[in-house]
Amino acid sequence: MTNRLAYLGPPGTFSQEAAFRYDPEAKQVPFPSIPAVASAVSSGMADEGVVPIENSLEGSVTYTLDLLIQETSLRIRHELVLPIEHCLLAVEGTETSQVQAVYSHPQALAQCRGFLERCFPRAQHIASLSTAAAVEDMKASDVPAVAIAPRLAAELYGARIIARGIQDNPNNVTRFVILAHSDHPPTGCDKTSLCFSFAEVDRPGLLHAALSGFAQRSINLTKIESRPAKQALGRYIFLIDCEGHREDPLVKEAMEELGRMSSMLKVFGSYPRWSGPQGG
Amino acid sequence: MTNRLAYLGPPGTFSQEAAFRYDPEAKQVPFPSIPAVASAVSSGMADEGVVPIENSLEGSVTYTLDLLIQETSLRIRHELVLPIEHCLLAVEGTETSQVQAVYSHPQALAQCRGFLERCFPRAQHIASLSTAAAVEDMKASDVPAVAIAPRLAAELYGARIIARGIQDNPNNVTRFVILAHSDHPPTGCDKTSLCFSFAEVDRPGLLHAALSGFAQRSINLTKIESRPAKQALGRYIFLIDCEGHREDPLVKEAMEELGRMSSMLKVFGSYPRWSGPQGG
Repeated sequence: MTNRLAYLGPPGTFSQEAAFRYDPEAKQVPFPSIPAVASAVSSGMADEGVVPIENSLEGSVTYTLDLLIQETSLRIRHELVLPIEHCLLAVEGTETSQVQAVYSHPQALAQCRGFLERCFPRAQHIASLSTAAAVEDMKASDVPAVAIAPRLAAELYGARIIARGIQDNPNNVTRFVILAHSDHPPTGCDKTSLCFSFAEVDRPGLLHAALSGFAQRSINLTKIESRPAKQALGRYIFLIDCEGHREDPLVKEAMEELGRMSSMLKVFGSYPRWSGPQGG
Repeated sequence: MTNRLAYLGPPGTFSQEAAFRYDPEAKQVPFPSIPAVASAVSSGMADEGVVPIENSLEGSVTYTLDLLIQETSLRIRHELVLPIEHCLLAVEGTETSQVQAVYSHPQALAQCRGFLERCFPRAQHIASLSTAAAVEDMKASDVPAVAIAPRLAAELYGARIIARGIQDNPNNVTRFVILAHSDHPPTGCDKTSLCFSFAEVDRPGLLHAALSGFAQRSINLTKIESRPAKQALGRYIFLIDCEGHREDPLVKEAMEELGRMSSMLKVFGSYPRWSGPQGG
């Protein structure tokens, strides 16, 4: 049966590109927000959902972290790393020398600042609510304009790509996770994501002690992050990614040890470590 | 001489309210972005600058963290915690029962979702680029509309406050830091903020070892956070806040120990711990 794959819309975004790379055969279904993608999967409207979790320049996508903390029925089944290539789009016949306005999401404008200063030093930068909206705003502009958007948006919204790869930092990649009702069986090269918190606050060394079980077993932590517990400033939930599968004996032991000293421990799932397009 | 205090504009934002609470006598100067506030101080256009660093619901303001990591000449001299009270604004004569549109920044709309569902179940939610822009958008609306914005914005933009404290979670506070050319002398009740990173990656227990010097000396960490190093996915810079002043002997020792095992260690400053409006 065809996999119904929910993704963060509108169509033409990097999330849709990630969805396509994850499962080119799937029926893709756009949803308007990250929580909506999760609800689509948990309620059965979709089988799996693709959401961004981390960008190499901007850091974590906090909506996705908060969703994983709150959501009870979903697990991470896969991860996927996508290079972020910003393109410059224009309507047919636009003279680049006449361009007076550049439309995009503020984050994309910021990521292409050097390129814009060199090539369009006199153009005004105008913030749009998404890169997809930027293409619509550009098409409705009274003055000659361009938009920064993903490659896919050009085809979808009928614009022409006039430049590719215009981001200033070449190390611009986004990590996506695929949410489903269950995580992935062990493959021998896995990763586990979890979160935990403490009932106490302000006891010196609490976090240090919490990480001991992993350090003693030489389990590498590939990421540590904190999110507000939303009860009071200074109360946090910690999120870690570690190497190994939750069924591996050492990972299991370290997690049990952590569980005994924390007031809340939740495993988001174990899944194959991303190792490039062929390994996805 | 009057303190020239830069803040994140436009006028009418919570940052301006924080600036006013920090120094009611100061000459307030709005700047359009967090980096612009920092540049204003480092270049001498302002003596100090107020920027948001953390919200109890949304988490860290990553622009400010990245700025502290990159900026070489500025230190944190103070911190200040401000309750975030969202207000509902309308133009004179608006019938609340006729309201068809609610304008605000997406974050403010999200933080008042419950209130809006109860009181304006049929109104459309429209995203604006800032809460200040929302008031302008509301005033230009063709249909009866309201805007969610800070109290200050009402006076400034000539709108009427029709409801106060409409945020769903009462524990909504933002922590601001005051940037200056030097940090604060010891007061006996201080906090120190710093960041560090490692040359190696993927060695198990590295972060655990880095925190040991603080745990062994019973120095409490009040916050730990990671930011991408922007070189590759999986490379991070860690930021911590600890109790005590960088001139306290134990804090000094712990920092020296951390400095020996990290490839980069930068102290953002030591400053008095916030203890309510009277203590600021």
